Amino acid sequence: MAGTMNVTNPVDSSEPPVGRVARPRDAKLTPQDWLRGAADLLVEKSIDAVRVDALARQLGVTRGSFYWHFIDRDDLLQRLLQSWKQVQTEQVIAAHSGQPGDAQTVIRELAELPFHGVSARRGGAVELAIRAWARRDDMARAVVDEVDALRLRYIQGTFLELGFDEPQSHHRAFVLYAYMQAESLFRAQGSEADKAARRQFVEQLLTFKSLPF
Amino acid sequence: MAGTMNVTNPVDSSEPPVGRVARPRDAKLTPQDWLRGAADLLVEKSIDAVRVDALARQLGVTRGSFYWHFIDRDDLLQRLLQSWKQVQTEQVIAAHSGQPGDAQTVIRELAELPFHGVSARRGGAVELAIRAWARRDDMARAVVDEVDALRLRYIQGTFLELGFDEPQSHHRAFVLYAYMQAESLFRAQGSEADKAARRQFVEQLLTFKSLPF
Repeated sequence: MAGTMNVTNPVDSSEPPVGRVARPRDAKLTPQDWLRGAADLLVEKSIDAVRVDALARQLGVTRGSFYWHFIDRDDLLQRLLQSWKQVQTEQVIAAHSGQPGDAQTVIRELAELPFHGVSARRGGAVELAIRAWARRDDMARAVVDEVDALRLRYIQGTFLELGFDEPQSHHRAFVLYAYMQAESLFRAQGSEADKAARRQFVEQLLTFKSLPF
Repeated sequence: MAGTMNVTNPVDSSEPPVGRVARPRDAKLTPQDWLRGAADLLVEKSIDAVRVDALARQLGVTRGSFYWHFIDRDDLLQRLLQSWKQVQTEQVIAAHSGQPGDAQTVIRELAELPFHGVSARRGGAVELAIRAWARRDDMARAVVDEVDALRLRYIQGTFLELGFDEPQSHHRAFVLYAYMQAESLFRAQGSEADKAARRQFVEQLLTFKSLPF
């Protein structure tokens, strides 16, 4: 299952980011190429830097070819958000939901997600840039809130399966999700051994059933 | 003590942000005015937008007056980071450390920090923008890592005071710090009542002593 739980980048496969690889001038770009380039610019500069002319320059094509795939910049930004939402959330949830049964295993796999190497690192950088953008843009805010709600509801469902009641499942899901974000945010804190130990601690803490409160 | 635990903005007092208030053209600006303006631009646009000419325009002064206080843009950015580090971390820690005794109270107050109204919201927005900047800038990265380490060490010390051993204190501090960040990151998730309930859950969970692991 770990293989299917592919934390790819929001708008990325395992290829290196576009704009850093040599690409023949006449290669046909897909919408995904533009979205990947937009995510690169978002991380490396800011949402204000994600402009059609800058993107076309980065991809080495004319800006006219952009309009084969997108209505305008706003269309690009909306599809960037939808692509992030889909790959980082819906696909992951769908991959898990296909596997009936062991909720404890799902908890462990969720706790491991932040450690999935380069793709988790790039995914974390894109997500952080989207969250910063969402602090001053309602469209981005709405998608970020929706993604957080989807993930929390999914994680909560796993705790419900383990037999926790509704509020307990809500709280535990929030703490697990907080932990997952924190391992990405505070990546420099602790050795690999520290991280492995605290991951185990969090799993045990959140699935422990005999708390007196 | 809640009064002294003032989570002010990194470069802000309780005044409204500079650039949004009418200010007489000839008013004497302090370095703090420039730092507040820089933080505004960082949140509303990006670090690339924090430039001397844009700041001077926003503050309604000539760019020459910038050089009374700062050597250059790099000096401004370094002092922005140092100011954030000092106000958001060192002052908070110093306020707590002055109060000997009740570690349980400190834990509760830390868990309440994300809920301190407008100043926490603005502080969260600035911090997120600095974290996004740190993904592509080594100077910012170093300060963010240092701030995270300082906060974690302080929180860990509180769990040590409660009688937890070294690794347990480390893990619990990480989870509490993750929770504090998450309440700022996932602000839209849950009603006020949900948030109060999960805060209480987190406090109880992390200070509970009879876990079998």
